[in-house]
Amino acid sequence: MKLYFSPASPYVRKVTVVAHETGQFAGLELVTERSSPVNPNPEVAVANPLVKVPTLVPDAGPALFDSPVICEYLDSLHDGAKLFPAAGSARWLALRNQALADGILDAAILYRYEITLRPEALRWSDWLDGQMAKVNAAIALAARDLDAYRAAVDIGSLSIAVALSYLDYRFPDLDWQATHPDLAAWHAAFARRPSMKATEPSG
Amino acid sequence: MKLYFSPASPYVRKVTVVAHETGQFAGLELVTERSSPVNPNPEVAVANPLVKVPTLVPDAGPALFDSPVICEYLDSLHDGAKLFPAAGSARWLALRNQALADGILDAAILYRYEITLRPEALRWSDWLDGQMAKVNAAIALAARDLDAYRAAVDIGSLSIAVALSYLDYRFPDLDWQATHPDLAAWHAAFARRPSMKATEPSG
Repeated sequence: MKLYFSPASPYVRKVTVVAHETGQFAGLELVTERSSPVNPNPEVAVANPLVKVPTLVPDAGPALFDSPVICEYLDSLHDGAKLFPAAGSARWLALRNQALADGILDAAILYRYEITLRPEALRWSDWLDGQMAKVNAAIALAARDLDAYRAAVDIGSLSIAVALSYLDYRFPDLDWQATHPDLAAWHAAFARRPSMKATEPSG
Repeated sequence: MKLYFSPASPYVRKVTVVAHETGQFAGLELVTERSSPVNPNPEVAVANPLVKVPTLVPDAGPALFDSPVICEYLDSLHDGAKLFPAAGSARWLALRNQALADGILDAAILYRYEITLRPEALRWSDWLDGQMAKVNAAIALAARDLDAYRAAVDIGSLSIAVALSYLDYRFPDLDWQATHPDLAAWHAAFARRPSMKATEPSG
């Protein structure tokens, strides 16, 4: 399987953490690509017209995206403990928490595009404030839901951990840890898992 | 169940089309809300810190989002033909096509924010071009995958139909139909389904 990859992308990191947790990382052929909304990578575009990483090209069948689809696909391929609960309230909570984490990332990355990609004269402070308000409110919900993350390593808690690590990587001044020390303690422990140590961002 | 709703949101429409297709629309209490990244709605924010519609508040359990999670949850609650294939290649193709459709919408809505929400002096043509290139490339993939949509009404084909309808609603000059007449014929037939007629956008 070929995985279009960026070492700085938190959506990619979700996928590689899942691959490590499920014993499948060695089976992935990583193809490092950089792409942005204004500078799309033509090789990624062939597999995924949305020109986003991660995109997974399985040995058979169509290319898969986005990260929730790839993560669930990988989780279907192994016989160990599943990261996606099969049914019932555990499944909906895990998927909701994955969506919460992805929503943190979506807002944080729109913020980053605004301050790094967009020409300085065209930046809009209301947009930045709106995106960061989403990030902060989502972290507060994560802190209230901490018991669920402590209870299970699943796609929900894993996604939240990756999102918080991304904030630490790109927004070190946000200091959400001061406001949410219990969440910070859980995250620090999660970040010591081998799957997280093996996938620390760069670039 | 309470559904935070906007009559113009295509992500909401995915959910309401699923609710109609699965005989559950009458059980939804629709709460109409308007929200944008720079003008978040405080009532939605209580249920969903990302302040996005659709957000579903079930009779028991936490609020659910985003639209793929809500659609799969609703599909778990009825005994009829399922819109989410349970397993295997049919599932991955359907989920991939839902992600393709959602990616069309994500790009189209970022385009809309740029030309309607952002002050005119701060708009960036490269951003608009990049988002529209994603939309056009994704439509081209949809046209190549048409046999899969013809084969099944599932979350994949349903999402593609809703995304194309959104383009017709907000980007009538795009005229993707001229380039992809077979996809257009399929879409026109899908749009005559009662679930689609009952959920036409407004506002």
